Amino acid sequence: MSTRYLTLTTSCPDRAGIIAAVSGFIAQHGGFIVEASYHTEQEAQRFFMRQEIRADSLPFDAGEFRYRFVTLAQEFDMTWQLSDSAIKKRLVILVSKQDHCLDDLLHRWRSGELLVDIPCVISNHEDLRGFVEWHGIPFHYVAMPHNNEPDKAAAFAEIARLFDEVRGDVMVLARFMQIVPPDLCTRYAGRIINIHHSFLPSFSGAKPYHQAYHRGVKLIGATSHYISDELDAGPIIEQDTVRIDHGDTVEDMVRYGKDIEKAVLARGLRYHVEDRVLLCGNKTVVFR
Amino acid sequence: MSTRYLTLTTSCPDRAGIIAAVSGFIAQHGGFIVEASYHTEQEAQRFFMRQEIRADSLPFDAGEFRYRFVTLAQEFDMTWQLSDSAIKKRLVILVSKQDHCLDDLLHRWRSGELLVDIPCVISNHEDLRGFVEWHGIPFHYVAMPHNNEPDKAAAFAEIARLFDEVRGDVMVLARFMQIVPPDLCTRYAGRIINIHHSFLPSFSGAKPYHQAYHRGVKLIGATSHYISDELDAGPIIEQDTVRIDHGDTVEDMVRYGKDIEKAVLARGLRYHVEDRVLLCGNKTVVFR
Amino acid sequence: MSTRYLTLTTSCPDRAGIIAAVSGFIAQHGGFIVEASYHTEQEAQRFFMRQEIRADSLPFDAGEFRYRFVTLAQEFDMTWQLSDSAIKKRLVILVSKQDHCLDDLLHRWRSGELLVDIPCVISNHEDLRGFVEWHGIPFHYVAMPHNNEPDKAAAFAEIARLFDEVRGDVMVLARFMQIVPPDLCTRYAGRIINIHHSFLPSFSGAKPYHQAYHRGVKLIGATSHYISDELDAGPIIEQDTVRIDHGDTVEDMVRYGKDIEKAVLARGLRYHVEDRVLLCGNKTVVFR
Amino acid sequence: MSTRYLTLTTSCPDRAGIIAAVSGFIAQHGGFIVEASYHTEQEAQRFFMRQEIRADSLPFDAGEFRYRFVTLAQEFDMTWQLSDSAIKKRLVILVSKQDHCLDDLLHRWRSGELLVDIPCVISNHEDLRGFVEWHGIPFHYVAMPHNNEPDKAAAFAEIARLFDEVRGDVMVLARFMQIVPPDLCTRYAGRIINIHHSFLPSFSGAKPYHQAYHRGVKLIGATSHYISDELDAGPIIEQDTVRIDHGDTVEDMVRYGKDIEKAVLARGLRYHVEDRVLLCGNKTVVFR
Repeated sequence: MSTRYLTLTTSCPDRAGIIAAVSGFIAQHGGFIVEASYHTEQEAQRFFMRQEIRADSLPFDAGEFRYRFVTLAQEFDMTWQLSDSAIKKRLVILVSKQDHCLDDLLHRWRSGELLVDIPCVISNHEDLRGFVEWHGIPFHYVAMPHNNEPDKAAAFAEIARLFDEVRGDVMVLARFMQIVPPDLCTRYAGRIINIHHSFLPSFSGAKPYHQAYHRGVKLIGATSHYISDELDAGPIIEQDTVRIDHGDTVEDMVRYGKDIEKAVLARGLRYHVEDRVLLCGNKTVVFR
Repeated sequence: MSTRYLTLTTSCPDRAGIIAAVSGFIAQHGGFIVEASYHTEQEAQRFFMRQEIRADSLPFDAGEFRYRFVTLAQEFDMTWQLSDSAIKKRLVILVSKQDHCLDDLLHRWRSGELLVDIPCVISNHEDLRGFVEWHGIPFHYVAMPHNNEPDKAAAFAEIARLFDEVRGDVMVLARFMQIVPPDLCTRYAGRIINIHHSFLPSFSGAKPYHQAYHRGVKLIGATSHYISDELDAGPIIEQDTVRIDHGDTVEDMVRYGKDIEKAVLARGLRYHVEDRVLLCGNKTVVFR
Repeated sequence: MSTRYLTLTTSCPDRAGIIAAVSGFIAQHGGFIVEASYHTEQEAQRFFMRQEIRADSLPFDAGEFRYRFVTLAQEFDMTWQLSDSAIKKRLVILVSKQDHCLDDLLHRWRSGELLVDIPCVISNHEDLRGFVEWHGIPFHYVAMPHNNEPDKAAAFAEIARLFDEVRGDVMVLARFMQIVPPDLCTRYAGRIINIHHSFLPSFSGAKPYHQAYHRGVKLIGATSHYISDELDAGPIIEQDTVRIDHGDTVEDMVRYGKDIEKAVLARGLRYHVEDRVLLCGNKTVVFR
Repeated sequence: MSTRYLTLTTSCPDRAGIIAAVSGFIAQHGGFIVEASYHTEQEAQRFFMRQEIRADSLPFDAGEFRYRFVTLAQEFDMTWQLSDSAIKKRLVILVSKQDHCLDDLLHRWRSGELLVDIPCVISNHEDLRGFVEWHGIPFHYVAMPHNNEPDKAAAFAEIARLFDEVRGDVMVLARFMQIVPPDLCTRYAGRIINIHHSFLPSFSGAKPYHQAYHRGVKLIGATSHYISDELDAGPIIEQDTVRIDHGDTVEDMVRYGKDIEKAVLARGLRYHVEDRVLLCGNKTVVFR
């Protein structure tokens, strides 16, 4: 896994010649493309592209690439970004008391599957300090008072301060069970990923498994999504479902649900970390 | 498939000794149970049971079984039913113009997989007459006027008349695209099965694939359910989902959706026909 | 669906600049790419590409495109092909007595989902003549004698003659239950698709559901693949599985299996018809 | 989860009256059945049954139940077993260097989902000692020499000694990567569960993901099974598959595979621990 890649993601108004222009630019500098994905969003008439290039095939580094690409990007009115696989994204995980998603992410991290740095974990409970610190990761406790809006705002301000202090790139709400205030949703738009324990848009809000139980559905689901200022309504990254039947209680659903929550969050986060997720309004293009 | 079975389904308030009493009754007459299923609904404190008995192991027929079982049923305050596999249920199919569910059901019927009689198919369009009549099944056209409530009521009255005339046991709305009036929902409660092209409760009502497209979900689904007087809110029998991605248009969803609609309707109908579905309020117990 | 597309599929030894050269060629003539897919097969060091171009964006037709593309193709040592969506592929279906795959394919064809012409259906039994002819499709009976190799060879020669006579592009063995002789496998390599009722390579050969039953597997599967001269060992196009349990008999497996056989064959055939399947040795690249 | 249950599992030659006799015995003592499952294996003409009874509904404990049940069990020639939920099974986990299954099982254990005691973990490498001991679980290192059969036999003898010493009930090979000698397979028949990283019977033996890659399958799988003296051929408890495509390398398969390995092992082990798995020759009846 020591090969180094530059990953270019762009979106722009659709027209003929975009692929030719961008791949021409890359080829002109000898760039070797190892993975390329394209998509046209019909309604928005917008074109999306992701290209992974072997860094050692280029005569310059990421900075120079960016500098030279600007002209082309302006010509096509592109929103674009270039990532260097040698520079890992910095992930901050927020948890409450439930640890199944945390355990899953930390295992993927320590086994080298999830290629990020984790500068800290933040929680409104002390329960998981020991497990986090065993990994050598700093653990920050931030009190989150019930029913006290000013104190809650202060707590979230502290979370934002910690995130900025460690220069976080992406924040994951790994069953954090707290509603993030609108100002932070806006400030970190496209950078905070939540896992919701239902197949959205069904059963948004509190206690989705109880809602599912009372409706008598035959499958339950989980959804990883970027948060927005509307609760459980942000852009969906990944979803999955699992079969249940009449014999399953709410407790059974919680147990099955944990497994798909972990899977759906881990997949969604991996897509984000690998620059596979591009935003298109309130929808996502995911180049798997 | 020539072996004949009696299928006993019961539900009653939960208490100790129910299985012993019912299986004792069957054993006392030499009855050979080939399949037995039990379930306790915790919230409702209600017990559900289904037993399939080889008819040739009993010294009497279904009528005599029913007569003798009455005392026991009263003792446990049971809601119960006994079916004889030699007497096929009579299925009436309602269709509009889309024929994927109709084609699927008729194929299962003519290949001997779906063990029902189909006395007729009813439609508000003439398009599918030829295909239905090729099977030797009578086809009835019932005009269904737009935006004319009295005429619509008359059309549904005609449908009910046809259903009663052929002594229908179960009616399937195989993408019928019309809202059944509340009086028929009540009159045929637990006997009309609809296929809805979404994973309910998401995207109830009209154009679910368009709704799914605009919400940006990563899976689409289908639901077979008994209709009730609240639209798309009746007891769910079966559901399934299929993965889509950002590249799929509404037309693609329609195409993928057809396959799960067929599958989910066929499974739900089979469960109903084999007396595997028991109602518990607005939920179902499905003994697969 | 009246928009017309040209679809270009190519494969060649991997090197830098392929995408740029091909997309440059297309852009130079104003070609509007609506779907583009790329893949590098690491072991074979081979590059695969599929591009769908709006025909009305080009100043010339398919013939002229082919003529002009030759130089570029030679430069990169490409194996390539250009299809015109206005010219439908011609599908010949071979069946025996079981009709679930046939019914499924014909329904998709008559509903406009499967965009092919079906010049004829060939069978070694008369059973399905009526159903096929109802669709207005010619039905040819070819006797297939048991245990008589010369007569069997003659029967397959007749099948090949019929296929050639109607200028067939692709032949589907829709549960044909006969082993195609090696010379035809070679002659029509990459053009004959079989549906095998197991998750290959498990349970190749005869009676896969019986094999699955006796091994006690918890899922059964189906595989659509190009046939080769080694039985059930050709390049796999599509596979799927479905859950069973201890309560399922061989007959139950046959019933569940039909549903995935239909689905897996229909998907595999669609990929082939839309030029989404490229061969790489005994493996396939499938640009879904 | 403090309610205490007795779980009775039995199998015997099939005949009429078994359910009546057993449920009659339970009812006669006021036993309240909360879950009941039945199955007849047609070929073997054998009947399987599992009943979960609320311990507080019975006037006696597990020992007395066993004593009183003997007569009935003999009458029907039953193989049977009675478990008390208050007495946890003792699980010994064997690992090598890969820790995804270990991490998953230990998380389920410490979160209270997997209701077992874990007296020790045994490994032929020291790598995972720290993680195991953090949980307060003893970790035993047993050297496992390559290519030295006598030393290998001695290592397995030591493993067996440790298992017996801690009175182990079930041993899990959580990617142990060593072949258990036949004498231990026999001695602990039905008590050693292995996770194999393929959808058996495909790709048994070494390097299944490499085998899958070269065959070009479109799904990969995992299988949890009891080991027997024939490699990867013992009774299957649980299986699952996940979709891959041409773009996935062996490394990608390994990564996807870990997730289904964990899931399939955890489910299989839970079924075993809850006495839901009954053996029928080389097959299993799994009462989920």
